[in-house]
Amino acid sequence: MTDIPYKIYLEENEMPTSWYNLRADMKNKPAPLLNPGTGKPMTAEELGAVFCDELVAQELDETTPYIEIPEEIRKFYKMYRPSPLVRAYCLEEKLKTPAKIYYKFEGNNTSGSHKLNSAIAQAYYAKKQGLKGVTTETGAGQWGTALSMACAYLGLDCRVYMVKVSYEQKPFRREVMRTYGASVTPSPSMNTEVGRKILAEFPGTTGSLGCAISEAVEDATSHEGYRYVLGSVLNQVLLHQTVIGLETKIAMEKYGIKPDIIIGCAGGGSNLGGLISPFMGEKLRGEADYRIIAVEPASCPSFTRGVFAYDFCDTGMICPLAKMYTIGSSYIPAPNHAGGLRFHGMSPILSQLYHDGLMEAISVNQTDVFAAAEYFARCEGILPAPESSHAIKAAIDEALRCKETGEEKTILFGLTGTGYFDMVAYEKFHDGNMTNYIPTDDELAASIAKLPKTAE
Amino acid sequence: MTDIPYKIYLEENEMPTSWYNLRADMKNKPAPLLNPGTGKPMTAEELGAVFCDELVAQELDETTPYIEIPEEIRKFYKMYRPSPLVRAYCLEEKLKTPAKIYYKFEGNNTSGSHKLNSAIAQAYYAKKQGLKGVTTETGAGQWGTALSMACAYLGLDCRVYMVKVSYEQKPFRREVMRTYGASVTPSPSMNTEVGRKILAEFPGTTGSLGCAISEAVEDATSHEGYRYVLGSVLNQVLLHQTVIGLETKIAMEKYGIKPDIIIGCAGGGSNLGGLISPFMGEKLRGEADYRIIAVEPASCPSFTRGVFAYDFCDTGMICPLAKMYTIGSSYIPAPNHAGGLRFHGMSPILSQLYHDGLMEAISVNQTDVFAAAEYFARCEGILPAPESSHAIKAAIDEALRCKETGEEKTILFGLTGTGYFDMVAYEKFHDGNMTNYIPTDDELAASIAKLPKTAE
Repeated sequence: MTDIPYKIYLEENEMPTSWYNLRADMKNKPAPLLNPGTGKPMTAEELGAVFCDELVAQELDETTPYIEIPEEIRKFYKMYRPSPLVRAYCLEEKLKTPAKIYYKFEGNNTSGSHKLNSAIAQAYYAKKQGLKGVTTETGAGQWGTALSMACAYLGLDCRVYMVKVSYEQKPFRREVMRTYGASVTPSPSMNTEVGRKILAEFPGTTGSLGCAISEAVEDATSHEGYRYVLGSVLNQVLLHQTVIGLETKIAMEKYGIKPDIIIGCAGGGSNLGGLISPFMGEKLRGEADYRIIAVEPASCPSFTRGVFAYDFCDTGMICPLAKMYTIGSSYIPAPNHAGGLRFHGMSPILSQLYHDGLMEAISVNQTDVFAAAEYFARCEGILPAPESSHAIKAAIDEALRCKETGEEKTILFGLTGTGYFDMVAYEKFHDGNMTNYIPTDDELAASIAKLPKTAE
Repeated sequence: MTDIPYKIYLEENEMPTSWYNLRADMKNKPAPLLNPGTGKPMTAEELGAVFCDELVAQELDETTPYIEIPEEIRKFYKMYRPSPLVRAYCLEEKLKTPAKIYYKFEGNNTSGSHKLNSAIAQAYYAKKQGLKGVTTETGAGQWGTALSMACAYLGLDCRVYMVKVSYEQKPFRREVMRTYGASVTPSPSMNTEVGRKILAEFPGTTGSLGCAISEAVEDATSHEGYRYVLGSVLNQVLLHQTVIGLETKIAMEKYGIKPDIIIGCAGGGSNLGGLISPFMGEKLRGEADYRIIAVEPASCPSFTRGVFAYDFCDTGMICPLAKMYTIGSSYIPAPNHAGGLRFHGMSPILSQLYHDGLMEAISVNQTDVFAAAEYFARCEGILPAPESSHAIKAAIDEALRCKETGEEKTILFGLTGTGYFDMVAYEKFHDGNMTNYIPTDDELAASIAKLPKTAE
């Protein structure tokens, strides 16, 4: 029975050589991005002012099912991939569940998360286009770290605008990025017009992700040879992240394992989309069926309590409009330590799939998430990131349900990263100072009422 | 040529099932531990008051070449081992060296280092003996974290005395240990007689490793069902750490690789001893020859500037005497950020081998170490611990020597862990505020003059 090892690693020659473009198999395609000024779909030319050309092509490509992973990126992947598919024997034993639990662990690289999968791809295409560098924003810092690593490897300049409060509260994240040669600027800054304007108006502001995005975009578009890159939400990002799901599927097939339930945490959707894509593809093509569950924080419930409508991707309202599940770009999520899930909207691809009834979504409370995280750490060893722990919480609940019913279900979840830089949150939890925040119906109604009227 | 993958992982059934006891192949055995009171070799009974019985047996066993790894420990090893043996293709390319560079990476577990290999073994034998828990001290925190993880897994109580200054400066390390259920006490504390005495005498003291050891030993010996455990220096620790070298050797043999040079950082010797043991065994038996290099910080040069003599293992002078290379237990090493290498002495096994001319030792400056660490991070991705980076520095120097001579040497080094909790040191380096400290001859002579006169 235990011929399945604790960890399944693929051989190098078993690793995926193409990303899988789920849109090619979707009957209902995700709605196009709209120009907020004209209300018309963004053209490749318009997108090309902000993003690299090849990434624009990937963003708009709805028909090519497999897109080859360039040799240089595959070489980089080999430095930290394949990531292990882990059989959670110890967790199963401790839960006394008949369920079989697997997790795909993306935390074994210095960025501490799956973000590196797309960072290297985006940096590679920037380099290929002959650019000097890229700009981006970062909040919690995982995306900024991943991009810094990718740029260091390729010899590309990397300019990160880090939300000022994070810059000050997470000095270690900042130093990791500096170790990889990135310039890290607390936002708002005097580097950009938008930054100077905000500083003049609100001299004491500690910044916001919306403001940092605005600065990063302005920096890229006002400097020759620079483009802006983003770590989630976009179709191109989900495409790169399919390497997670593809590796998982190959590893499972190698051992004849078929998941019944697939679980992932959901913020902008990059990890969840990456993990589920090849399985969802089978489901769309009618070849197999899986129960797929997105887990979001109760404090920021875009799937479970939002609406499916066009909205800005950023709180600064300068980015294109995307049709997605959203609680309104004007909504400021409560301080939730899973910074990577504090996003008002959701990937357009995942939003369409959810709208079409192809996946489920649940929301969970922060304190329950940390209790699950600690439980998991003590038996499986790995200290999980708060974001990833949303999936752990849901997986444990499903495993306990199997214990009640006696069903031997196979549960797969995505363990997106490690929590080494989240110890302030763990400390709050240990000291009993962590609170849950659930937005009221009125609060959500107010921000949803402010959705842009431009489209539909 | 490139049929050697970036990372070599063993299959579960290829993993070592026994540790290798190098002492069995040593003609000149390491000198026994002495009772500082009587000046006579410590008996099993004396050692048993402090350490678990099976660990005492391992400490004293000089003849059994292979000691089976208990099933329960092998199960735990499977959660985070085998660790990858990595071919540093990117580093080689960047250095433009004909040398082939490999490193065994022990940082892919939450303790962030190789310490877990011995922590689980020591906790297992404590549990097997029916004990309630174990006590230990920790400075930088890697050992304390590893022990907390092992105890959480086995349901054993874990009491960590953390040097007060580290407790306050490294709150994240403390929280990781708390996540694994350990009690973490800043030392000196009111828990112990020795702690109370020190606090009365020096009310504002920020503690020392020597004091924390004294408290941990007192706690263990004054509570029924507790024993003290230590993360380095001891023969038993080197034994457990041989899993590193054994895995490395199996992986290399699988691909027909034979190292010419083997490099490891050296503090107390646990990682270096673990990595080199099976290779040193071949060397002792005349089956093969390897150049083996220990790398220590210039600020704490026990091999390169110490004497081979009996000394206390702790600055508190309560532990047994060990014959080793030492710069004197009264010597307080300068603040060097590689906390794991700030030890005045060296493993008795390694000391004997060095004394017999079977290995070399060099010392390196802290700023050169961090420059090497950053260089490595930018091409290989992994953010190395300051301790491990001593080996990186030496490996890069050897590779550059090959570039000059054109020799295609195979270099193997131990990458013991990650630097996520060392960003304060990286920040100092980035800001140009890092200094080197090399003890003067007079300073070393003064502390060496204070060596105990009891033995020899």
